[in-house]
Amino acid sequence: MTSNNDNANYGDDSPIAAFATTPGNSALTLIRCSGKGSIELAATVFTAARTKNSLQENVSPLMSVQGNTVIHGWIVSNKKEKIDDVLVSVFRAPKSYTGQDSLDICCHGGMTAGIAVMAALKSAGFRNALPGEFTFRAFMNGKLDLTKAESVMELVSAKTETSRRHAVSRLSGSLHNEIDGIKKLLVDVLAAAEIYLDYSEDEISADAEEVEGKLPKKETALEVLTRLKKLSASWQLERIFQEGITVVIAGCPNSGKSSLFNSLLKEDRSIVTEIPGTTRDWIEAWVSIEGIPIRLIDTAGLRETGDSVEKIGVERSRKLLEESDIVLYLIDGSRGLTAEDKDFIANIGRHILVWNKCDIAPLPESLQVSGQIPISVSAKTGEGLVELYVAITSEAGIKDLQLHDDPSSATLGTIRQKNLVDAACASLEEALTLSDNDEPLDIIAPLLKDTVNSLGEITGEVSTADLLEKMFSNFCVGK
Amino acid sequence: MTSNNDNANYGDDSPIAAFATTPGNSALTLIRCSGKGSIELAATVFTAARTKNSLQENVSPLMSVQGNTVIHGWIVSNKKEKIDDVLVSVFRAPKSYTGQDSLDICCHGGMTAGIAVMAALKSAGFRNALPGEFTFRAFMNGKLDLTKAESVMELVSAKTETSRRHAVSRLSGSLHNEIDGIKKLLVDVLAAAEIYLDYSEDEISADAEEVEGKLPKKETALEVLTRLKKLSASWQLERIFQEGITVVIAGCPNSGKSSLFNSLLKEDRSIVTEIPGTTRDWIEAWVSIEGIPIRLIDTAGLRETGDSVEKIGVERSRKLLEESDIVLYLIDGSRGLTAEDKDFIANIGRHILVWNKCDIAPLPESLQVSGQIPISVSAKTGEGLVELYVAITSEAGIKDLQLHDDPSSATLGTIRQKNLVDAACASLEEALTLSDNDEPLDIIAPLLKDTVNSLGEITGEVSTADLLEKMFSNFCVGK
Repeated sequence: MTSNNDNANYGDDSPIAAFATTPGNSALTLIRCSGKGSIELAATVFTAARTKNSLQENVSPLMSVQGNTVIHGWIVSNKKEKIDDVLVSVFRAPKSYTGQDSLDICCHGGMTAGIAVMAALKSAGFRNALPGEFTFRAFMNGKLDLTKAESVMELVSAKTETSRRHAVSRLSGSLHNEIDGIKKLLVDVLAAAEIYLDYSEDEISADAEEVEGKLPKKETALEVLTRLKKLSASWQLERIFQEGITVVIAGCPNSGKSSLFNSLLKEDRSIVTEIPGTTRDWIEAWVSIEGIPIRLIDTAGLRETGDSVEKIGVERSRKLLEESDIVLYLIDGSRGLTAEDKDFIANIGRHILVWNKCDIAPLPESLQVSGQIPISVSAKTGEGLVELYVAITSEAGIKDLQLHDDPSSATLGTIRQKNLVDAACASLEEALTLSDNDEPLDIIAPLLKDTVNSLGEITGEVSTADLLEKMFSNFCVGK
Repeated sequence: MTSNNDNANYGDDSPIAAFATTPGNSALTLIRCSGKGSIELAATVFTAARTKNSLQENVSPLMSVQGNTVIHGWIVSNKKEKIDDVLVSVFRAPKSYTGQDSLDICCHGGMTAGIAVMAALKSAGFRNALPGEFTFRAFMNGKLDLTKAESVMELVSAKTETSRRHAVSRLSGSLHNEIDGIKKLLVDVLAAAEIYLDYSEDEISADAEEVEGKLPKKETALEVLTRLKKLSASWQLERIFQEGITVVIAGCPNSGKSSLFNSLLKEDRSIVTEIPGTTRDWIEAWVSIEGIPIRLIDTAGLRETGDSVEKIGVERSRKLLEESDIVLYLIDGSRGLTAEDKDFIANIGRHILVWNKCDIAPLPESLQVSGQIPISVSAKTGEGLVELYVAITSEAGIKDLQLHDDPSSATLGTIRQKNLVDAACASLEEALTLSDNDEPLDIIAPLLKDTVNSLGEITGEVSTADLLEKMFSNFCVGK
């Protein structure tokens, strides 16, 4: 067998393997395998820890154990060289994440053990899993609907505790249940409309004219519309919780950019991770302010004057500023507002002015720049940072966060869902308008069907192979 | 119960938990739990996926399942809020890594899910595991000897395929078996000597004078010495395979340091990892050259002239050069050897001179610097890189690597083992010398006992609590 991925596609059920954890500086590494015949394949590169005591050395214990069992043993090469001491969890179809025969191989951590085990699996005939392929298979085998499948990825990429809670809520079915409930109501409306359609001409002739232009169960349709609009509106905030906002710290040299960056990291007790910049030019970190993931970028490494290096710096600086949702522009309080500052401020987008070093140079009472009063802080002493947090969340357009933080309420998790909810709203609204205009039911009913279909697409009841492939290929590998 | 670690110590058997994989950008995160009562504790924050169908909702399925079983369910908070959808592998004492009741909790990846699950475990009463505490417990419960315990850490921190293979060899018992074999031979020698000691004065009176100064089974003792010396000698290379060597690329601005760095990364197909520098001043990466882990450092970010930033740069540069095993000093071929180059070269330690840009400026035939002929390379075209590899391994003092690469032969894995083998050699040699000098057996026998004890310390048969604590505290958390 070959281990190449040339013929790999989401539709097949061939044995796949992927790192479910990143090999690196950790005690263990987890490799996930799934697919038809995957247990048999894995058995060819596995020997149990106590083969010598076993009665039947020829039958691999992997083959004979029940599902949901963990076995201790060695992954071996085809030359029977021991590769790693592992724990293998065996899952038998349909009782597994994917619904297929599956294995989780727990090998040693570090940079080499997992890679060597993966090489052995591939030489045995596993191919690399495509992004999201495990969850794709789980969906195809009816293990979860699309909203839950998407919530798995939302959960994995959640940057703050709040985004995690919302994703878990969807994973446990809050969105699925809401969509399902809405759809049932709508099917009732549609069924009532179709009864009229089927019978109106002959049997209900007396009332036909009267009824024709009126949508039966209009109240229900209006309730559906309200609930759909609420869902649609939830996305604005969910998107911010998921993707976060980018805040770039800019300002003249020595205005204290790095100090402010460090203070914000230090103050924030729920730092998520520090990401060293991909170049030496800037550093960034994710911090959480009121549950909102903030990608904080310090441009201190970017020099804005000088030699040939400078041009790259300026270019990158400009790009970072363009990417940012909010710029924190630092004024060096000890120098006061300079012409250079004014120049810079005039040329940036959404920004918050920050008067730094207020411990040694208080903000002049009358100072305003383009109508904005700078926020007075001292990166050194921490003074004013709370006010800065408030300014950031308010600038991000987020108010009354607590109102949105009911884990049981259904919220949308992806732009795909949002687009489909909006499509459902649009067709339903059109149906209602036509009804108000006394248009005949036979042109209204198809719009109701469109609405039902859009909702079906959200959960995946209605789907096409193309759509699914596109969706799952945005997942990470190993999920 | 509290979750604080104030009273944590390696001797207790309280329930501990640790991340076995690093939470981050991965599909899954693995948390390992172990200790007396750990299954009962975990049961307080776990509900099975299908509790509603279960007949006895009051008995947690975690409590009732057999060992080596995987259960699917939710970790819940003490307010019964769902925290994450997990797979829990249950292990029952003594059939587990530590020999105690244990659980592996496989939760979702990313920055938040694992952290939330860990918080739930800690609020349930688990404490953070100390470094190496799982393996410490495994050792204490007779699951593995010290050489195998150490090999677990060697394996996790192995930087190349070669170091992995050597660690796996020790994990599967090669060193343990060799030490054990040697010790058995030595015990034979000691036993023979003690027979003489016990009986010589009275019963073996006739030969007493003749025998007294001669070590019985001296041939065996000499064989032991040879094998111990071979083991001791193996450490020199093992250390290099494990720790690797640090190679710093230095040279004047524009000599092509970054280009060479990138070429070495690119050429090397077995790049282990790229580590962004902790500051913006330099970058480093691990590469593997002939199985030797090379920590390659590019000092290109360090400026050596200029303003106040400069001083920090020079200081860091100096420190990096001091840390390095080998400096690759780049001469800019297009400019030729400058006075600045000569100055620099005169002040650095072990170094290899590299004439870069040979594609546009060939190395002058007669050029030598302090008796060294530079290696002619072109970072741009890749010319000369193979010669550079050879020069690096040769400068590192490694020849005939293949000779050392027999996975079945026993090699030492830690400096602790090396020190004990050397101690064993020293006492055995002293015993042999005394024997050659016809000293009485009663002063030779204690030296043999010392030798046996040193060997016992290697495997852990002879050990003290202090020694063990010191050793395991160097492990990583989660192992």
